[in-house]
Amino acid sequence: MFDSHVMRPIITLLTDFGTIDGYVGEMKGVLLSGVPNAEVVDITHDIPPQDVERARLVVARVWRRFPEGTIHIVVVDPGVGSSRAALAVASDGRYLLGPDNGVLSPALLSNSARVVDLPITSHVAATFHGRDVFAPAAVALASGEHFDALGSEMRSPVVRRTPEPVRRADGVLDGEVVIVDRFGNAVTNLLGMRGGTIEVGAARIAVRRTYAEVDPGELVAVVGSTGFIEIAARDGNAAEMLQLSRGSPVALRTSR
Amino acid sequence: MFDSHVMRPIITLLTDFGTIDGYVGEMKGVLLSGVPNAEVVDITHDIPPQDVERARLVVARVWRRFPEGTIHIVVVDPGVGSSRAALAVASDGRYLLGPDNGVLSPALLSNSARVVDLPITSHVAATFHGRDVFAPAAVALASGEHFDALGSEMRSPVVRRTPEPVRRADGVLDGEVVIVDRFGNAVTNLLGMRGGTIEVGAARIAVRRTYAEVDPGELVAVVGSTGFIEIAARDGNAAEMLQLSRGSPVALRTSR
Amino acid sequence: MFDSHVMRPIITLLTDFGTIDGYVGEMKGVLLSGVPNAEVVDITHDIPPQDVERARLVVARVWRRFPEGTIHIVVVDPGVGSSRAALAVASDGRYLLGPDNGVLSPALLSNSARVVDLPITSHVAATFHGRDVFAPAAVALASGEHFDALGSEMRSPVVRRTPEPVRRADGVLDGEVVIVDRFGNAVTNLLGMRGGTIEVGAARIAVRRTYAEVDPGELVAVVGSTGFIEIAARDGNAAEMLQLSRGSPVALRTSR
Repeated sequence: MFDSHVMRPIITLLTDFGTIDGYVGEMKGVLLSGVPNAEVVDITHDIPPQDVERARLVVARVWRRFPEGTIHIVVVDPGVGSSRAALAVASDGRYLLGPDNGVLSPALLSNSARVVDLPITSHVAATFHGRDVFAPAAVALASGEHFDALGSEMRSPVVRRTPEPVRRADGVLDGEVVIVDRFGNAVTNLLGMRGGTIEVGAARIAVRRTYAEVDPGELVAVVGSTGFIEIAARDGNAAEMLQLSRGSPVALRTSR
Repeated sequence: MFDSHVMRPIITLLTDFGTIDGYVGEMKGVLLSGVPNAEVVDITHDIPPQDVERARLVVARVWRRFPEGTIHIVVVDPGVGSSRAALAVASDGRYLLGPDNGVLSPALLSNSARVVDLPITSHVAATFHGRDVFAPAAVALASGEHFDALGSEMRSPVVRRTPEPVRRADGVLDGEVVIVDRFGNAVTNLLGMRGGTIEVGAARIAVRRTYAEVDPGELVAVVGSTGFIEIAARDGNAAEMLQLSRGSPVALRTSR
Repeated sequence: MFDSHVMRPIITLLTDFGTIDGYVGEMKGVLLSGVPNAEVVDITHDIPPQDVERARLVVARVWRRFPEGTIHIVVVDPGVGSSRAALAVASDGRYLLGPDNGVLSPALLSNSARVVDLPITSHVAATFHGRDVFAPAAVALASGEHFDALGSEMRSPVVRRTPEPVRRADGVLDGEVVIVDRFGNAVTNLLGMRGGTIEVGAARIAVRRTYAEVDPGELVAVVGSTGFIEIAARDGNAAEMLQLSRGSPVALRTSR
């Protein structure tokens, strides 16, 4: 089925730019001018401005889902123009380009990761490295330039991690809400385990297999699609019902 | 002009996921990992969470505009994880994949429609059939698997229809607002007919050819791009002016 | 690297349609039905309804960033259905299609620009020229039709320009805010010049090289990525802090 004639570099974009100002459009123009047969894929441009943590979690979800050879450009960059480094990462056969603020951590944590520091020349716009540093680096990679030629080796990039839950003496795990998604589901840092009960404030919520095991409007906890427990409300918004936001404490009590 | 070397499967995505959580990104990764030369096309990810009816209306607009062979993935799925079936539909040369909740009705209503029930294996995430059921089915179709091999025949899928207007004794048609669009235009279920008058509350609005036949700020009714009458305000927001929303009653009085 | 077998027409879309109503989806269907190997690229669909000026500024940013041969479709069109012309523009090797309301001005101002008036036949939906006039014209161009065959020559298209700053007797330049972007940065019509000071209300803000030269939360002026001075707040929202919006007066005082 696959035909080498249509082999295209896949380049994804993940930013906090929105689309309304044309910044993403400019980046797409740079990419397609440099690599006319690239497949440019939008991951999202709706990360809240400068929310590095939220972007990191999206990177964690998507970066390894794409085929080997994919180039992910991630620009959520409150430090643009400062002395923070601009990174290229090669990890598990994929490439990632973005600022050195932890947003690329999911790929940096792989054993295979190699990192280079991209040079920032003086004619680069100090406010728009997405267009003038990261998109050109993607063009270079997609055009066959060797990864190591992109910059000098970088030994200590910034790495962020989701906080680990803490086990109490009685075995209960104290965790927290990592993200509230569009549906009002609160994704926690508690690894999935059926038979347990989530405690959040005064609420006690059994961990079940699917939303459909409770009645509409009721709270339910399920093991979500990344393996972590999510608190949801069937056909409703759990985060609003429980007033949950990023960092809210939640605990997991298991029956054993 | 057309060259068989660049023949690519076209796969469209229509969801209520937004893009901010990375769920759509994961689906794109699954699709491009399975079918590297696919053309993945965003229809929308902005359907309000779980608004099956709104998604159905977008499906109605777009599904047959795409070339034969197109695969449409439609995931607006309040019942994910329940016993609702997961469908594949072949209709008028296009394929559609989505939950059995009526969202695929526009394609199901064609005489040529065939439907199969996609198997949901036990290792599928109960909360994310978009990634684990529908995207893999699209990959299978795009890779040449035969439609009938995707699942077992399904005889009575859920079908939703736009309500029909009702004719009064005096010939006036009682209809309703089907959707209010981004511009505040209220699309009705009344088939276009010039020479008539729309009655909505105390307002009487002549059906005209274009918005431009009234002055800025004035109400106007026109035959919209799908053949149904829309109530608009030139350079304004008719739904706000008339307090219209989905289901609001409107009537069409014709001169004859 | 480049292989003529994968030469694809690039067609970009810039609208105020949002995606929720399926209008953009319909246009993509028309484009891919007519040109199955086209690369359809979203610039934005989030222009506020009928905000021709904002769309014009995005066109200015992006149109020449794309490779020669690119076809840009721009539909922000408060006058759809009126007697305003529908334009095709050939300029600097790119093509642009859109209404004659100034939205295509950045390309019209090039010396090389040629313009034709697209015919609007009677079976076109009076409310949706994006689907029925501009997308078919893009299909014609991408299929090899000659530009001049698309319509009759047009000699006086509507052109809009960003207002020029005015120089006071004492050398201070009186300018204005042209756009407030998603980050709350206020882009002005004052061409970049370091060593100057921006005056806005009672505030005096030195023009610096990067955001990072001030402390978080502080106001800063920088030369933005298009060469014009922007007023920003490091890790903050300058437009909110200074209550700036499109048209707000700002002045540039230089030290000489």
